Amino acid sequence: MKKYFKSVSDKIKLPVFFPDATRGVIKTLDTKDIESAKTPGILVNTYHLYRELGEEAIQNHHGIKGFMRWKGAVISDSGGFQVMTLAKTNHGGKVTDEGATFWQEGGEILLTPEKSIEFQMILRSDMVVVLDDFTQPQATYEQARESVERTVLWAKRSKETFSKLCQKKKIPEIKRPYILGVVHGGDYLDLRQECTQRLVEIGFDGLGYGGWPIMADGQFNYDVAKIIAQNAPNNYFLYGLGVGKPHEIVNCVKLGYSIFDCVLPTRDARHKRLYIYNANSIDDIDLNQKKFYSYYTPDKMIYRKKDVPISHACDCLLCQNYSRAYLAHLFKIKELTAMRLSTIHNLRFYSILMEKLQTDSFKKT
Amino acid sequence: MKKYFKSVSDKIKLPVFFPDATRGVIKTLDTKDIESAKTPGILVNTYHLYRELGEEAIQNHHGIKGFMRWKGAVISDSGGFQVMTLAKTNHGGKVTDEGATFWQEGGEILLTPEKSIEFQMILRSDMVVVLDDFTQPQATYEQARESVERTVLWAKRSKETFSKLCQKKKIPEIKRPYILGVVHGGDYLDLRQECTQRLVEIGFDGLGYGGWPIMADGQFNYDVAKIIAQNAPNNYFLYGLGVGKPHEIVNCVKLGYSIFDCVLPTRDARHKRLYIYNANSIDDIDLNQKKFYSYYTPDKMIYRKKDVPISHACDCLLCQNYSRAYLAHLFKIKELTAMRLSTIHNLRFYSILMEKLQTDSFKKT
Repeated sequence: MKKYFKSVSDKIKLPVFFPDATRGVIKTLDTKDIESAKTPGILVNTYHLYRELGEEAIQNHHGIKGFMRWKGAVISDSGGFQVMTLAKTNHGGKVTDEGATFWQEGGEILLTPEKSIEFQMILRSDMVVVLDDFTQPQATYEQARESVERTVLWAKRSKETFSKLCQKKKIPEIKRPYILGVVHGGDYLDLRQECTQRLVEIGFDGLGYGGWPIMADGQFNYDVAKIIAQNAPNNYFLYGLGVGKPHEIVNCVKLGYSIFDCVLPTRDARHKRLYIYNANSIDDIDLNQKKFYSYYTPDKMIYRKKDVPISHACDCLLCQNYSRAYLAHLFKIKELTAMRLSTIHNLRFYSILMEKLQTDSFKKT
Repeated sequence: MKKYFKSVSDKIKLPVFFPDATRGVIKTLDTKDIESAKTPGILVNTYHLYRELGEEAIQNHHGIKGFMRWKGAVISDSGGFQVMTLAKTNHGGKVTDEGATFWQEGGEILLTPEKSIEFQMILRSDMVVVLDDFTQPQATYEQARESVERTVLWAKRSKETFSKLCQKKKIPEIKRPYILGVVHGGDYLDLRQECTQRLVEIGFDGLGYGGWPIMADGQFNYDVAKIIAQNAPNNYFLYGLGVGKPHEIVNCVKLGYSIFDCVLPTRDARHKRLYIYNANSIDDIDLNQKKFYSYYTPDKMIYRKKDVPISHACDCLLCQNYSRAYLAHLFKIKELTAMRLSTIHNLRFYSILMEKLQTDSFKKT
């Protein structure tokens, strides 16, 4: 199994969680805040940055890290999620073998596998992700089959573009970013297996669990996670794209997954949902407990007028400095600072989670 | 002239600017951000905290400083501005000699001079301000006369309440907060003079320039500032309430004023107006220049795609870390971080202004 994720500046311990800095910013935070939450890496969105920022500003700053002044690792997703949510739905565009067309105010944008890789190389991410044809939730077998075929087709072209660009830019093997393939096939295990094998034939540094990991009954689909893990070479990264809740991450780590990203900690924070460990100190946290964490809603809880911290098992800006009463007040008056402090807290919750998972007892045997 | 403003923890150099932390928070900032802008003190609002927070949470934290975790100085205004803007206008309440009644959702609130002082003592401010009857802009002579009479009446009762509370709580003379009287009388210099003299008879630690300092023609009324200064004892603080633009502060300091508060730097920041010195470094700033500062609007200016700082004459979080292009991007995507970084920048602009004004050349001779 992989032991580290290398970025230009550092080797990052695995497993690692990358929160979403979609447009080059984690909502309500500045880059120093991300550092203060001890977050080793972030995920940026190729489609949104391509559309809203363009190449000039990024190139003037020598990549997204310079633009954000971010010293940690960066993964750029491919825009595949937007293919599903924007181009495939609500008449927002169309998808052909050439690529995905998005109908925007002021014209249409064609995102091809080649363009996605090219822009990600301009972003100078540490890991680029191939454009994928996202299998819709509850897809029929035929629909899932079609998305697998197109995903594999696009993966080939992405890999070719990637190799050409690395040669053209004379990037030595050791300094190339990682390139990730994305496995599709919905809930059909045979399609997932086939997709995994065909992507491995093309050759990548890792594979992502693509599509919705949540089944119609609301349960996480661990069978798909397993079939990908079983068919991936041992030296591949396994990446739970968009995963997930803390206990889902714990379970996926046990299956060999080591990279995760998810909007949950940041989005939940902005909606007054804070994660707290059921423990009295960071040392006391026990991920083997059945219910090792809880949600905390600032204005609904007792002690909301008291001078006590949100959590004793946290060392974030919020928990080290402010009281439950102050946070409840900030949310009550709809002050943005409440969202920022809560976001930093939830990110620190996730970075503590990953630190705990880096101990040997949770590694896949 | 006063040389320092003492707070519980520190002696603060004069002149000093107190930005508005109306509800116990400077909008978009946390308390550590205020420190990082090298802001020595803040102004909180008695009326808003009384209405929205009540006494319990404040008492649980031993005052507003504990609640905010703020180590600097605090001035609490009296609620006088709200008497004018909320109680006197739009049928929002009424004002009698007893106090100001505010008609709120869920009932009415009566704010008396006594209650205002009592709550400010619970807040444990370093300077309490007496409740004043704000003279309306463009008031007739009779209206201005009435507001002076009520302001003096309320000032007497405030001072009595203050003295009683200090005795009851056994606060030794040296540990008592400052108490500030507020001068009214509109643009009528004889009323301003009379009000000043009658407040001095009651006895305060300083006097505030109350009411609107801006005349109908948009000019700052320095004549009123002068008449108050001329009639105040030499050991009084002179406080420009709600003052002001950078050059207005410079002019008032020359007249002997040493305390200021204003919403401008914080409100302007949230509306994309940043203050920058016309200088290449902090050392180069020259307040004697005719136009020593400019406004900077992030998304309208040249260099908005460039990797250059907002200002070379600033050492704030924004200018030390991020580029014009990044700030323009954050504003373009309506990201709250843009407002926070700009607020910190504008506060640092004001704290640099005050540091420059603390040099001898600007002291009143």
